[in-house]
Amino acid sequence: MGRIKTKLKRNLFGLTLFFVGVIFGSLFISNIVAQGPFDKALEIAKARGLSPEAVENALKTYHPTGVKDEYIMFSSGGHSGQVIVIGIPSMRILKYIGVFTPEPWQGWGFDAENKKVLQGTYCDELRAKLTWADTHHPALSETNGDYDGQYLFIGDKANSRLAVIDLRDFETKQVVCNPLGYSNHGAAFVTPNSEYIIEPSQYAVPQGGKYAPLSEYAEKYRGYITFWYFDRKQGRIVPEKSFAVEVPPYWQDLCDAGKLASYGYAFCNSFNSEMATGKPVGSPNPFFEIGASQNDMDYLHIVNWKKAEELVAKGNFKEVVGIGGFKFKVIPLEIAAKERILVFTPEPKSPHGVDVSPDGKWIVVGGKLDTHATVYSIEKIKKAIEQGDFAGKDRFGVPIIDFKKSVEAQVPIGLGPLHTVFDNRGFAYTSVFIESVVAKWQVGTWKLVEKLPVHYNIGHIAAAEGDTVSPDGKWVVALNKWSIDRFATVGPLHPQNFQLIDISGDKMKLVYDMPIPLGEPHYAQIIKADKLKPWTVYPEVGWDPVVQKKSPYGTELGKERIERKGNTVYVYATAIRSHFTPEIIEVNEGDRVVMYITNVERARDATHGFALGGYNINLSIEPGEVGVVEFVASKPGVFPFYCSEFCSALHLEMAGYLIVKPKK
Amino acid sequence: MGRIKTKLKRNLFGLTLFFVGVIFGSLFISNIVAQGPFDKALEIAKARGLSPEAVENALKTYHPTGVKDEYIMFSSGGHSGQVIVIGIPSMRILKYIGVFTPEPWQGWGFDAENKKVLQGTYCDELRAKLTWADTHHPALSETNGDYDGQYLFIGDKANSRLAVIDLRDFETKQVVCNPLGYSNHGAAFVTPNSEYIIEPSQYAVPQGGKYAPLSEYAEKYRGYITFWYFDRKQGRIVPEKSFAVEVPPYWQDLCDAGKLASYGYAFCNSFNSEMATGKPVGSPNPFFEIGASQNDMDYLHIVNWKKAEELVAKGNFKEVVGIGGFKFKVIPLEIAAKERILVFTPEPKSPHGVDVSPDGKWIVVGGKLDTHATVYSIEKIKKAIEQGDFAGKDRFGVPIIDFKKSVEAQVPIGLGPLHTVFDNRGFAYTSVFIESVVAKWQVGTWKLVEKLPVHYNIGHIAAAEGDTVSPDGKWVVALNKWSIDRFATVGPLHPQNFQLIDISGDKMKLVYDMPIPLGEPHYAQIIKADKLKPWTVYPEVGWDPVVQKKSPYGTELGKERIERKGNTVYVYATAIRSHFTPEIIEVNEGDRVVMYITNVERARDATHGFALGGYNINLSIEPGEVGVVEFVASKPGVFPFYCSEFCSALHLEMAGYLIVKPKK
Repeated sequence: MGRIKTKLKRNLFGLTLFFVGVIFGSLFISNIVAQGPFDKALEIAKARGLSPEAVENALKTYHPTGVKDEYIMFSSGGHSGQVIVIGIPSMRILKYIGVFTPEPWQGWGFDAENKKVLQGTYCDELRAKLTWADTHHPALSETNGDYDGQYLFIGDKANSRLAVIDLRDFETKQVVCNPLGYSNHGAAFVTPNSEYIIEPSQYAVPQGGKYAPLSEYAEKYRGYITFWYFDRKQGRIVPEKSFAVEVPPYWQDLCDAGKLASYGYAFCNSFNSEMATGKPVGSPNPFFEIGASQNDMDYLHIVNWKKAEELVAKGNFKEVVGIGGFKFKVIPLEIAAKERILVFTPEPKSPHGVDVSPDGKWIVVGGKLDTHATVYSIEKIKKAIEQGDFAGKDRFGVPIIDFKKSVEAQVPIGLGPLHTVFDNRGFAYTSVFIESVVAKWQVGTWKLVEKLPVHYNIGHIAAAEGDTVSPDGKWVVALNKWSIDRFATVGPLHPQNFQLIDISGDKMKLVYDMPIPLGEPHYAQIIKADKLKPWTVYPEVGWDPVVQKKSPYGTELGKERIERKGNTVYVYATAIRSHFTPEIIEVNEGDRVVMYITNVERARDATHGFALGGYNINLSIEPGEVGVVEFVASKPGVFPFYCSEFCSALHLEMAGYLIVKPKK
Repeated sequence: MGRIKTKLKRNLFGLTLFFVGVIFGSLFISNIVAQGPFDKALEIAKARGLSPEAVENALKTYHPTGVKDEYIMFSSGGHSGQVIVIGIPSMRILKYIGVFTPEPWQGWGFDAENKKVLQGTYCDELRAKLTWADTHHPALSETNGDYDGQYLFIGDKANSRLAVIDLRDFETKQVVCNPLGYSNHGAAFVTPNSEYIIEPSQYAVPQGGKYAPLSEYAEKYRGYITFWYFDRKQGRIVPEKSFAVEVPPYWQDLCDAGKLASYGYAFCNSFNSEMATGKPVGSPNPFFEIGASQNDMDYLHIVNWKKAEELVAKGNFKEVVGIGGFKFKVIPLEIAAKERILVFTPEPKSPHGVDVSPDGKWIVVGGKLDTHATVYSIEKIKKAIEQGDFAGKDRFGVPIIDFKKSVEAQVPIGLGPLHTVFDNRGFAYTSVFIESVVAKWQVGTWKLVEKLPVHYNIGHIAAAEGDTVSPDGKWVVALNKWSIDRFATVGPLHPQNFQLIDISGDKMKLVYDMPIPLGEPHYAQIIKADKLKPWTVYPEVGWDPVVQKKSPYGTELGKERIERKGNTVYVYATAIRSHFTPEIIEVNEGDRVVMYITNVERARDATHGFALGGYNINLSIEPGEVGVVEFVASKPGVFPFYCSEFCSALHLEMAGYLIVKPKK
């Protein structure tokens, strides 16, 4: 009995220890890993063959339904002519903003009023008719060097235009044409309080769109760095208050505005300091790609825009009558050189991006045929300029600071560096095109820290609040030019590939591949979402979004009417779920028809469309908005119109007829 | 010593048991949950406050970088006029296909050859100039009732047009205009071998675009259900081999083609059997939304297209000279009724979608002012037609089968049922607009199984291979019309919201919210990705994508040339990384310039753009393709051109000048 007892005791002791062990072991593991409810998720992970890293990535980018993104990225659409709005980290596209290209879902370019915006300010006959653009560099408006969430600017490389987007309604409010030439690249870059929007030209042309043979290239072809004055209160660029600095025909590329330590300066690079003029058929001349890649060094353009502004205020400029007969203030190259508004320093080789560090102390240039990020010191540059310490002048008389007297460091990062962005921990991230990597390096020590392969051919790179005086870190996006095999094939034209990189840890982590379904983005900027204060509906019923105030043509419910004045029929209409008033519009063949359609809804998302068969008309009329339709009823017949936004259960019944009576 | 030994032994035994317990406990838990490597992922899940369900959803939709989607969804873009290509389950948008709306990134409508496609076949003066459309229903081509991955068809509701997209290169190959009227809705639906593409009209107009006052509505206004003949070998619709069945002016809505048990039939519904004609200004008439919602029953149109085809073959049709003077074969309403090509049966109330079950036995109608999915039996319908068992005729003489003699069941599913799709386990899923739910019910028992709330106002619904004779199950997508608060606000115009629903388990699970950034999708179809065999580059260098064969204008490297014929300058050019040949093109003011630019690349993704400043020209020339540019050099000056696709490190150097010499 005693033995049994002892045995039992001993066993009980052991069993107790065993179960304590079981519990301890269970708790131990479950504390580190997870509780039961996650079982199924992990089963799925295993079944799908997801690595632990993939699971991490999934969780970092996933947004439970209904949860919003922390950051909003504004990306250029390239030759789609639009701006792409993307949520980060979910990498979901929230909107394509119609900018230079008509877009019917938004009614952009179909409404009679916004069509005028698209035709532009200061635009000649050719450019007023454009229906596309090559948007390259979006720039958010800034206050004290920080994004303020009010406006977005973007340039059209193909036609030297600039657009202003109002971030209250995410709609384009202005398109301006540069009367000096047809080509930019860097646009847009803003000065730290958006005093000016900087637009450098790219392919040099005879100033003001004149004709000159290529044999007169050096004499007659010129570049320009334009400073467009922005009236923030009006939300408009004012061409009359803007000016340009004439520069040599070196094919300027991107720019960046100085800030803090370098406030008052702008920096632009160039890549055809050889002044190559290309290869006509049968000519022994080299192609541009060879002719423009001869020199080991091109010129970083250092522009003192504060001083330029003073000169312009004093009337020290020439007035150029440019394309379309529009006048523009230009500081001639000779004056710019003499006054040291324009100063050069050498930059290696065929550079692309120039990026100013958050503190404004360093100017980083990526030489696309070089292997370094070249870092210039604003302190050294300023000192050389003040002391008149120049190594010489170029053939146009522009003073050149000695390379060694302006440069601080050259960070060896690999072949084909293009652009550099910054985080909040003193690191810089450079896109390296030929190597297809993101290179992370340290500001100050100028040491390369890490390289992360991306897929493939990275062009630009964007960081959270990355172009401000206070970047946020956390996320970097690689804007890859080619996707090749990363997605299901959708024909010979492939999507680009945006890759989201988590930079919060010691090592960069690639967490997501995102195809770009329309457009070829160049640059992008990323803003904290809570800095944006967009409207959910227009502030008042009867709103004109073009001028952002009440329209005199808004119509109240019950006051709808049709008025004829000569051959013009004015229709004052309303739209509400689920009818237009009036539903029947009778006109005569040849009448001009003007319709003002007020969406009298106040509910969020209660947009109505207005589509008219045959007549190429489709509006998107958001709650409160007045849409404007204008056309000539050139053809007799019966033309149905209807609401093109699925608004209600009786949406299909929200329709009517335009009846055009034939001439006798 | 013995006691110590015993104690030690006992403790050792206990300790051993303890550690065995620890190991057992650890293994026990780690087997159910996961191993250490997943720790970090679960920490992230906890830190982000993700529920176990959210973690599951994340893993189901996440795609490790570089991994492709299992399904491809083709969605209409609504009034954007495009088609949206989406990967499932990642819900990433892979491409926007330019269809009816010019799109510069693809060069769609900018290339001189594809501009002609956009102008259309059988199109009148007004419709040849359209630059938008309201795309509603995409339909994949079928073989034996299964998607074959070859073509995609889509209709333009606003202008009664139809487009054909070739899925080898995801480009639009044909646009046809319906000469009978300006409005459709349901287009496109295909017969089980894509013999015909079905396009029903929506808002009735006087046949052939004539004028008639609304007072003659019943006499002169008509609808039409068009059967467009598709020549699969040519990949083109042949208007001359197509025909339409004239139908009463009841505002037809969606259709579906019968299959298997119902092969040879098509089913379309209608929603203004009241023949309401709307409310002119000051009139006491009711609005359409009221006038067209009076009857408790409208008419399901049952069309025997096989018999119609025979009649047409026998010459038993009238030839209507329609809009633009184009002739079209029409089976008159009287003949259609007499020959029982057109038969009605009542359908409750203001129906929207009509959907045929995979086996073809059941026709499901959603009455948007009803609370049921009404299920008709093809067996019963056929029997009634064969026996001439009709309850009467409508005012146009169309025989009407008694409701009870055609209907099989009415599934009570909630307020505002619109569309129904099917899975592989005998379930149907109906979108319920007013309730904002997806209702799952069982075919055969006709029992409601489950309702899942969606966000918000679901219109259509799509299922994996859902419209075929063999649906795949797995995924359903809710195409919600409103997103309201689901995403970060991007101004008063909100994105739509596609929600991915996992239907593989017993319960439906909402796994993802996807914003639609451009367009207002109506219907979508989902195909298994491996059924698509798209090209990654064009088959040969010198390819003309419009006709899908070698172009006579392709240019080999070294054979580039400029030829003048009178006032026309022909440029035979090539594009290769990183130059155009020729780079310099000199013409005289007023010359017509025609450029054939061959992309001689064979590497996947090596697309070149061709952008020309000022002249509204931008092409996308994929590897092998010949792009065609045509314009009049109306303005003297120097116009840069360049490659608008970032193709290489020396992409910016891939440029040239068009030099237009002024007239003396």
